Amino acid sequence: MQISTTCRYKKVEENNVYESIKKLILQQALPLGKRIYIEPLADELGVSNTPVREALIQLSTERIIKNEPYAGFFTKEVSEREIRNLYTLNLTLLELSLSLVRNDGQVPGMLKPPKFFEEQSPNETNTPNIEVQILNDLFMHISKQSGNDDVIYGIRNINDRINIIRLQEYDLIPDWHDGLVKLCQLYHQKNIVELKHALKLYHERVIFFCLILYYH
Amino acid sequence: MQISTTCRYKKVEENNVYESIKKLILQQALPLGKRIYIEPLADELGVSNTPVREALIQLSTERIIKNEPYAGFFTKEVSEREIRNLYTLNLTLLELSLSLVRNDGQVPGMLKPPKFFEEQSPNETNTPNIEVQILNDLFMHISKQSGNDDVIYGIRNINDRINIIRLQEYDLIPDWHDGLVKLCQLYHQKNIVELKHALKLYHERVIFFCLILYYH
Repeated sequence: MQISTTCRYKKVEENNVYESIKKLILQQALPLGKRIYIEPLADELGVSNTPVREALIQLSTERIIKNEPYAGFFTKEVSEREIRNLYTLNLTLLELSLSLVRNDGQVPGMLKPPKFFEEQSPNETNTPNIEVQILNDLFMHISKQSGNDDVIYGIRNINDRINIIRLQEYDLIPDWHDGLVKLCQLYHQKNIVELKHALKLYHERVIFFCLILYYH
Repeated sequence: MQISTTCRYKKVEENNVYESIKKLILQQALPLGKRIYIEPLADELGVSNTPVREALIQLSTERIIKNEPYAGFFTKEVSEREIRNLYTLNLTLLELSLSLVRNDGQVPGMLKPPKFFEEQSPNETNTPNIEVQILNDLFMHISKQSGNDDVIYGIRNINDRINIIRLQEYDLIPDWHDGLVKLCQLYHQKNIVELKHALKLYHERVIFFCLILYYH
C-alpha cells in the first residue's frame, strides 16, 4: 500500500468533514458521475474513514450524492427532470416565504435585506461563482422570511443541488446578471408583488434554458 | 459485560436497519426525548453497531431524531412551532401537487385514487394507528400527483415527523374520523377544487388544536 505524502487540504475538524466534502462536490473537485472513494478522501482531508463515510451518508440522504447499495457513493449528474422539479419546488418555497411576510404593521415586518452587491466600478465584473453565490444568498434570505426551518433547509438543499446548473445557466443566458440585479433590487425595495412576478419569470426562463441545455 | 440473551426483534437485514429503527421511533417504542444507545439497539436488531449508527445519521439528517455533537442521538419531541411549520409546508406541498394534476385531456390525467376505506360494517371502527395511516397514505398519494420526487420525499418526511402528533389529534378532535372520510371522498371524486378547500380547513383546524395541545 502506498502512503500518501501529499496533503492538498489542510486537516479538518471531524465536524467539518461534511462541509469540506460538500464544498469539493459543489466546486466539482470530485468529477461528476464517478465513484467517491472513501480512503483517498479521508487521506486528503487528514481524517479517518469513519467521519468521511458518515458525511457521505448525510450527503446522500440530502440527495446531493447517490448511495448505491453494494456499490458505494457516487457524485451525481442532475437530470433534466430533477432540475425542473427542483425549480418548481424552489419557486413554491420562495412564494410561501414571501406570502408569510407580515406587512400589517402589528408585528415585526420583513427582515432587512442585505446589500447583495457591493459598490463596484462600472467596468468591474464578478466571477460566475460570485454571481451564483449572490443568487443563492438572495434565495436563502427570502426563505428566512418564512421563519420556517424546513423551508430554509429546503432552499439550502436546492441551492446545493442546483449550484452546478446555475453556473451553466450563467454562461448560457446572456442577461443572467441583469436578471439577478433586478431580483435583488425588488427585494431591497420590499416590492413583494413585483418580486413574486419576477421570481416566476426567472424560474420559467431557467426551466426553458434547462431544456435547451439538455436537448442540444 | 452482560450478553443479551433475549432478542425482541428478529434479525434484520443490514439495509432494513433504517426502516426498523424508524418504526420503533414512530411507534414510540423508544421513549421521547431520551438518548438512543447504539449498542443495545444493535443487539436487539441482531446487527453490528455500524449500520445502526449509520441509520441514526440518516434519521437525524431527516430531522426525525436529533444528533447532538459530543452527546449522541436523541429521540425528539416536536415543538409547537415545528408542528405549525410542518403543517404549513405540508399544505403548500399538497396544494402544489394538486395544482399540477392535468385535467386538460391532452395528457394522462390524475392517478387513480385507491380505496382508502375497505368495506366495513357500521359498528366496526379502525384503531387510531390505522386511521392515521390512512391519512398518511392519502397525503402520499396526493403528493405523487406532482410527479416530483422532492415533493413526495417532503410529504413522507412530514408524515414521519408528525405521526405522533396525529395520533394525539385523533384523541383530541371529536370528529377527526369524519374529516378523514370527507377528504378521502373528495379525492376519490377527483373534486380538486373542494378538496383544496377541505385540506386548507383541515390544516387550519389541526394547527388550532395543536395550540390547545400545548397551552393546556
